[in-house]
Amino acid sequence: MYPKPIQNLITEFSKLPGIGPRTAVRFVFNLLRCPDYDAELLGKAILNLKKETKVCKNCFNISEKELCEFCLNPKRDRSIVCIVEEAINIPAIENTKRFNGLYHVLGGVIKPNEGISPDNLNIKELIERIKGNGIKEIIIATNPNTEGETTALYLVKILKSFNIKITRLARGLSTGSDLEYADEMTISNALAGRREYE
Amino acid sequence: MYPKPIQNLITEFSKLPGIGPRTAVRFVFNLLRCPDYDAELLGKAILNLKKETKVCKNCFNISEKELCEFCLNPKRDRSIVCIVEEAINIPAIENTKRFNGLYHVLGGVIKPNEGISPDNLNIKELIERIKGNGIKEIIIATNPNTEGETTALYLVKILKSFNIKITRLARGLSTGSDLEYADEMTISNALAGRREYE
Repeated sequence: MYPKPIQNLITEFSKLPGIGPRTAVRFVFNLLRCPDYDAELLGKAILNLKKETKVCKNCFNISEKELCEFCLNPKRDRSIVCIVEEAINIPAIENTKRFNGLYHVLGGVIKPNEGISPDNLNIKELIERIKGNGIKEIIIATNPNTEGETTALYLVKILKSFNIKITRLARGLSTGSDLEYADEMTISNALAGRREYE
Repeated sequence: MYPKPIQNLITEFSKLPGIGPRTAVRFVFNLLRCPDYDAELLGKAILNLKKETKVCKNCFNISEKELCEFCLNPKRDRSIVCIVEEAINIPAIENTKRFNGLYHVLGGVIKPNEGISPDNLNIKELIERIKGNGIKEIIIATNPNTEGETTALYLVKILKSFNIKITRLARGLSTGSDLEYADEMTISNALAGRREYE
């Protein structure tokens, strides 16, 4: 139906998360309308993405160098490590400005159905890190869903043998939410984790 | 905050219509996760888009050749021309399989506020087409909004001097819609254009 270069790009755009063919068509016609230079910027930025990024040797965050900005930063506290599923989770924690430790990116979660076992995650490397230097606390910050929880429980089991504190992010009502609309699990967690006024 | 190649691509993705920084971040991390080859396909498809597409000399549709698939197709009825705002509107009409004529892409609509006057649209070229050969009917299929209507009225004024039929797409209730939620204008148009049962 469309000329081939258009159809190709529609196909490729449709592979992006949440993008259906209709949105892909809008993207393509938007690029057709904009100056050649803008389309070139986008195309080249995509081609450069993989060429110019590496995975941090220490924590598996995405980085331009061998080690990422956090692992290289002498001001970060090396004794506390926050475990996240993916590198994309790091900015969310950084934005709070309440964490000054290092990270460890698992590279996913345990999904037996999809054949993702602990061996496919960066867990061996985490254990090496723990063995190697003075880590005092591990914060497990996997997502609060079934797979994230399963992975967290697995990690707790593995990490228990080391003499370190293992913590997880608190569960409860999210700020700005409404009791009326909160699900049972969230309210249960909020009750279980209730704190006394100081 | 993000490494530069990531930040660059977030900026470029954010220029796509309806894409905010959060979605752009998701796109980037999705590409980082997928095989290098997939990212390359997308990047190259974007770079090829402008290189491999032209504008049809006759109707201004997007094309791989000098003339688009419709203008080249000997089976299309050359005596009827449908005027659309943008090339992106053509597939919507083609999908109906009820139109077998040619198209003429205006390349936009009249927008005095943004300095887009009739001179910026492919109207001169439309008149040349009409003068040149046996066009018997022009269907004006601009969008049913203020700018589309203004442009349509302008075209009617210009085209009146030629001895051709000028029509526009019918206005009324859209299929599957609900009278309760239809706006006044739509219902007015549906009343005005009502048809007797045969």
